[in-house]
Amino acid sequence: MGKVYLIGAGPGAPDLITVRGATILRRADIVFYDALVHPDTLMLAANAEKIAVGKRCGKRSTAQHFINKRLVDAAAKYQTVVRLKGGDPMLFGRAQEEIDALKAAGIAIEIVPGVTAALAASAELGVSLTKRGVSRSVTFVTPRAGEHEPESEWIKSVVAADSAALYMAAGQAGPIADALLAAGLVASTPVIVLENASLPTMRRIDTTLKDLAAAVPPGTVSGPALIMLGEVFRQHERVAIDTLFKLLTTKRASRF
Amino acid sequence: MGKVYLIGAGPGAPDLITVRGATILRRADIVFYDALVHPDTLMLAANAEKIAVGKRCGKRSTAQHFINKRLVDAAAKYQTVVRLKGGDPMLFGRAQEEIDALKAAGIAIEIVPGVTAALAASAELGVSLTKRGVSRSVTFVTPRAGEHEPESEWIKSVVAADSAALYMAAGQAGPIADALLAAGLVASTPVIVLENASLPTMRRIDTTLKDLAAAVPPGTVSGPALIMLGEVFRQHERVAIDTLFKLLTTKRASRF
Repeated sequence: MGKVYLIGAGPGAPDLITVRGATILRRADIVFYDALVHPDTLMLAANAEKIAVGKRCGKRSTAQHFINKRLVDAAAKYQTVVRLKGGDPMLFGRAQEEIDALKAAGIAIEIVPGVTAALAASAELGVSLTKRGVSRSVTFVTPRAGEHEPESEWIKSVVAADSAALYMAAGQAGPIADALLAAGLVASTPVIVLENASLPTMRRIDTTLKDLAAAVPPGTVSGPALIMLGEVFRQHERVAIDTLFKLLTTKRASRF
Repeated sequence: MGKVYLIGAGPGAPDLITVRGATILRRADIVFYDALVHPDTLMLAANAEKIAVGKRCGKRSTAQHFINKRLVDAAAKYQTVVRLKGGDPMLFGRAQEEIDALKAAGIAIEIVPGVTAALAASAELGVSLTKRGVSRSVTFVTPRAGEHEPESEWIKSVVAADSAALYMAAGQAGPIADALLAAGLVASTPVIVLENASLPTMRRIDTTLKDLAAAVPPGTVSGPALIMLGEVFRQHERVAIDTLFKLLTTKRASRF
């Protein structure tokens, strides 16, 4: 009986997987991978059979119960079975359904955590999600499709946190902005939409809550994207202005 | 002029650093590290001068402005300067102060994200922080010392989220439990306190919000610890019972 490893591939860039994840991939016999996993990450599993199970942004492509069954079957046949998920497997990865199915079948399982997209985005932006005096809480949340009432549970968690990262949300930017404004967030709340965090194709859109709908109309974003918002991003602007100001004044001082 | 890399060392286990982080460490000339970084992680930086700056759980040991100055000075002298932080640098790491100081000094900077403790804890527990129909938001938060009124901002973010991970909180478990109960969380909310996530010295305490104060009196926890709470942890118990039940009924069936 083999063992199944649920491994977080990280946010996109192949070298943002953990050393442990890479080590296990190298000796994998079979790898079931999501659509968002980078081809170079897959190549680490040089000797493995590689099977796309095609999940993207939490949508079902291969039915979940069928993935569960394939994992259980593979563990009967192979020693090292890897289930490779984008980001961290325990955040928005539907991992629990796979874990429960494997446990119920008595199969040994190990979970290798990964860098989640919001932390890679924060690193790329150079903006810490927490900051003394500005932010001591950050919520990671995914909206329920079509549920945009100000009283929705997920809206409340965004409003209550100092910083927020919304996963699988960029396609519904308009209704989300309306709902957050209706729920009491201020119109000038800084927002950054970040697509393909950590990849060369990364793209950022800087806006505010009031302008979010116009800045990110449906169809703008095709890769995986995050909507990040909170006062920490306003601080970021101010630092940029401070630095520019310092630069200008230093230059002027040296001229005289 | 050198470059400064802010690297997340991950939650504790040395092989939970990213491949990128490990690669940069190997060619580092000088490393400024926090108290929580594992000795084996430091050993990756074989050729580097290693300087403890002794921060633990966000407390100041070396004054922050002095760390900032040392980073700036090191960049003038060395090509590859590493600032190594436990977990992810952008979550509860006071990173912004260092980033701003380096940017103001015109120093090149790159941030390498890491696996944050809550995700390692979730992996160890085998419980996904999000789960279809149970949890679509998780908040990562650190309490303000001594601020435990039900109306505190950080309390509201815990109450509003489906799952929560409280960093640097285990020493104040009693007042935190009181505040969360007063703010409306139900007494039976499942809580897991996890110390030294990902290390061999890991220890877990399973309790509920109403019993948290008694389960974790001051002094119980000495290593870095998380208070994790939410209905996802209740699901976990149920799965354990389901599995046990299945096992018992299967055994009985095979007996006849």
